[in-house]
Amino acid sequence: MTSELAKDLFFNLFNPKGGIKRILAEGMETTIFVGENVMVSLVRCQPHARGEMHAHPQEQWGVLMEGSGTRMQGGETIEVGKGDIWRTPGNVRHSFEAGPEGAFILDIFSPPRDEYRKEGHGFGTKDRVD
Amino acid sequence: MTSELAKDLFFNLFNPKGGIKRILAEGMETTIFVGENVMVSLVRCQPHARGEMHAHPQEQWGVLMEGSGTRMQGGETIEVGKGDIWRTPGNVRHSFEAGPEGAFILDIFSPPRDEYRKEGHGFGTKDRVD
Repeated sequence: MTSELAKDLFFNLFNPKGGIKRILAEGMETTIFVGENVMVSLVRCQPHARGEMHAHPQEQWGVLMEGSGTRMQGGETIEVGKGDIWRTPGNVRHSFEAGPEGAFILDIFSPPRDEYRKEGHGFGTKDRVD
Repeated sequence: MTSELAKDLFFNLFNPKGGIKRILAEGMETTIFVGENVMVSLVRCQPHARGEMHAHPQEQWGVLMEGSGTRMQGGETIEVGKGDIWRTPGNVRHSFEAGPEGAFILDIFSPPRDEYRKEGHGFGTKDRVD
């Protein structure tokens, strides 16, 4: 049993306090929270913001909380809307482009990505495909 | 690289197709999707539905997508509203009671809970505290 108190374990997606800040791309910023086996990333995308294609060994799930966009992964292109959820197995290349109203995505990584444990820029991977 | 196609990896939270059905408690039903390291549980709670206190070794995160309720964990009682997210470390006892309008929760488990890989009733644990 942990001794962690609720104040350190509860927050709100839409107005998170604390967390690790990262700029993923122009117009694409995130706040990251880390657990033992799971890392959560709250990604705010401006209209038409686009992340670069990349991959990492960790499994990832995405939940589109608000807005719309296009998910590219595994060589496929999928239009997504509010409430859509997707799984991206490890090492599958992926990217996201926000729709005209922007997008707010809850990303889930397991295990946590070490590259995201500190503030910074980019997707933290060199597996870049321009 | 997996050969899984997007149709097997994308769905919508509000109208999920497929998944594993489980009745957690009276008025508390879920649809479960399983990945390699993460299991996602989409929990629909009727007004005032209440789950029993329990614990499991897997880490859990909850996201309140709609409605309101009360989260009990680690001996604390926290009122939660839309967009609240909480982390429940492994082996911490917890329960949830929905508010007057019910609640829709996205639960995240890592690693996946073997008890939830098949349809059934209850929280799949004997660590019950009435």
